[in-house]
Amino acid sequence: MSEVIIAGIGQTEVGEHWEIGLRELAIAAIQDAVRDSGGLKPQALFVGNMLAPNLSNQAHLGALLADYAGLTGIEAVTIEAAGASGGAALRQGYLAVASGMVDVALVVGVEKFTDKIGAGVDAALATTSDSDFEAVQGMTLAAQAALLMKRYMHEYNVPKDGFAGFALTAHANGANNPCAMFRKAIKPETYTKAEMVSEPLNMFDIAPNADGAAAVVLTRRDLLPKDFPHPLVRIAGSASSSDTLALHDRKDMLYFDTAQISAGKAMKQAGIVLDQVSFFEYHDAFSIYAALSLEAVGFAIKGRGWKLAEDGEISLNRKISCATMGGMKARGFPGGAAGVYQAVEAAIQLRGQAEASQVTGAKIALIQSLGGPASTAVSHIFERFEA
Amino acid sequence: MSEVIIAGIGQTEVGEHWEIGLRELAIAAIQDAVRDSGGLKPQALFVGNMLAPNLSNQAHLGALLADYAGLTGIEAVTIEAAGASGGAALRQGYLAVASGMVDVALVVGVEKFTDKIGAGVDAALATTSDSDFEAVQGMTLAAQAALLMKRYMHEYNVPKDGFAGFALTAHANGANNPCAMFRKAIKPETYTKAEMVSEPLNMFDIAPNADGAAAVVLTRRDLLPKDFPHPLVRIAGSASSSDTLALHDRKDMLYFDTAQISAGKAMKQAGIVLDQVSFFEYHDAFSIYAALSLEAVGFAIKGRGWKLAEDGEISLNRKISCATMGGMKARGFPGGAAGVYQAVEAAIQLRGQAEASQVTGAKIALIQSLGGPASTAVSHIFERFEA
Repeated sequence: MSEVIIAGIGQTEVGEHWEIGLRELAIAAIQDAVRDSGGLKPQALFVGNMLAPNLSNQAHLGALLADYAGLTGIEAVTIEAAGASGGAALRQGYLAVASGMVDVALVVGVEKFTDKIGAGVDAALATTSDSDFEAVQGMTLAAQAALLMKRYMHEYNVPKDGFAGFALTAHANGANNPCAMFRKAIKPETYTKAEMVSEPLNMFDIAPNADGAAAVVLTRRDLLPKDFPHPLVRIAGSASSSDTLALHDRKDMLYFDTAQISAGKAMKQAGIVLDQVSFFEYHDAFSIYAALSLEAVGFAIKGRGWKLAEDGEISLNRKISCATMGGMKARGFPGGAAGVYQAVEAAIQLRGQAEASQVTGAKIALIQSLGGPASTAVSHIFERFEA
Repeated sequence: MSEVIIAGIGQTEVGEHWEIGLRELAIAAIQDAVRDSGGLKPQALFVGNMLAPNLSNQAHLGALLADYAGLTGIEAVTIEAAGASGGAALRQGYLAVASGMVDVALVVGVEKFTDKIGAGVDAALATTSDSDFEAVQGMTLAAQAALLMKRYMHEYNVPKDGFAGFALTAHANGANNPCAMFRKAIKPETYTKAEMVSEPLNMFDIAPNADGAAAVVLTRRDLLPKDFPHPLVRIAGSASSSDTLALHDRKDMLYFDTAQISAGKAMKQAGIVLDQVSFFEYHDAFSIYAALSLEAVGFAIKGRGWKLAEDGEISLNRKISCATMGGMKARGFPGGAAGVYQAVEAAIQLRGQAEASQVTGAKIALIQSLGGPASTAVSHIFERFEA
């Protein structure tokens, strides 16, 4: 298999882009990424998208975006795995280049929540849970996360404000990210006083649904332009795992099996152990997801993920830096684009270009994209290396 | 790259399956395919689906179907490229095995038109065309195909009944396929007297939207069970190409560029020329698509694809056997499953198990899955070979 390099990165600001459409959003990120790669010519496009057929009445994004990006004729396809669509698209792009079948692959994640043409956003999001047994009961993803959180608090005797650390860290880091939706640090009382959404889940336990697009260009090392201006970052590990959609079908709903399995496989492929990971971009669509991810991956024992956050150990350059550019909570959650934002942010960190958010000496990143409550998890290890 | 073998095939009857759901349909095909492979254990699932988020309120099919198939934990993802979703899923499965990253890949195509929970079927199908510039005008895919057909008739002076041969061939072949939706040969006057849908497109120019699921198991040759009971069929070529979604953006709307490009690349990879192709499973969602595909691939010159059909040259064992098990027209068009049905049917032919539909001495198949009016085309070359 060929070595796969992150040759170019691009992203738009995350937010409410009422003024532009899904395709314009995607193209902005694609053009950034292609420019950043020194003008490599993609032969294949992998689009990570979660809800456009419902929210924007637009399927068939592969051909559409290839055409609008001026790449008419290339191979193009859409990859969907709920909230993990971005990570899954990255993995398909990785496979295409690693196999030797494709020299240059373009991966774009895009989501446009503000289109809302078809179903409402909550109904559309609920199509990613088990439609026949969960969504049909009226359970939204937030309500489902609230049930998980409540169970977690009960099992492990966690206080109501035990999750504040996730939002505090995310907002502190997001303040320095020019592409983040929210660029303002918050105080502990902001969390404490936040409006309740679905008890015990409050406004600051939930990442905001938002519009955005992010893109990466992948290629083999021998195809990089000679004057390639960036430090080299490679995909050293890639893995994906699936679990039941419905929570009630799990033996232990408080353990994210897929997060453990996919991270373990990706680290094994990369030949590294957890201690070598410089920072962890988890999928904090809900604070309870972040806590369970920290535990599944192995940064905390069961029931103690929240404590890492409370103790400030997930802040920059403490035990394990998380959500270093704001995570889903502060950067925003642009659905199927989220996993590609993680990839872009990890590359920025590993290139040493994260400025005020820089993780000191960042060498190895673990990024993880979840679909639903870890019904899908896609994990990647990125590594900075010397040419 | 590893050699990729079609180790197992499975399919359900195509039709209106009001009594069972999307997941049950998919699982039936998956179980068939795994059994047919001698019990190989898939490590990755690629789901081809076009409209479930709209028609069945169900996204995130990868994890859902992996779980229902008893494969909880494996990698699983949904691949969408409109009507080419099945072919695109097959290609991703092929890439996964060819790359050496996955030993055994399972590809399932599934569509359930009779769910129709969300948008109506025509509205849902229209999301695969350009939403902002075509669908918004109220143009359905059938209306779009009618425009293409009318232009074709005008340019090449084709009589109104010049397309009858496509339906006649499809229904003659479908009569012998136990999984076909329509198993009855038709007479020329059936076509002539058929109800008009969108002038000049009549009922027999359109493949029926239908429910169905088909699956294939892919693996490397060295991993086949020792007592593998079937003749060996490999994927010798695989390629995909994209074009504009909107017809008005094309230089020549009467030439399917992507059909030409993807078929050409797949044949080049396989090291064959067109004359060596034993049969061609085209994407006859509309008869005009079949005519344009025959021309783009090179079986007829521009403007003469319809004549091949009229002259009976696409019937079994004439110039080029097409729609050998009924094609979309008689087997039925189960959306994102259609491309995987083609794969199953091609494998049956190459194994020599097609009985009354058998193409004599079938050795090499070209199958082609289209999204919209060839906005996406995915082409595969299957080859029978001796161990």
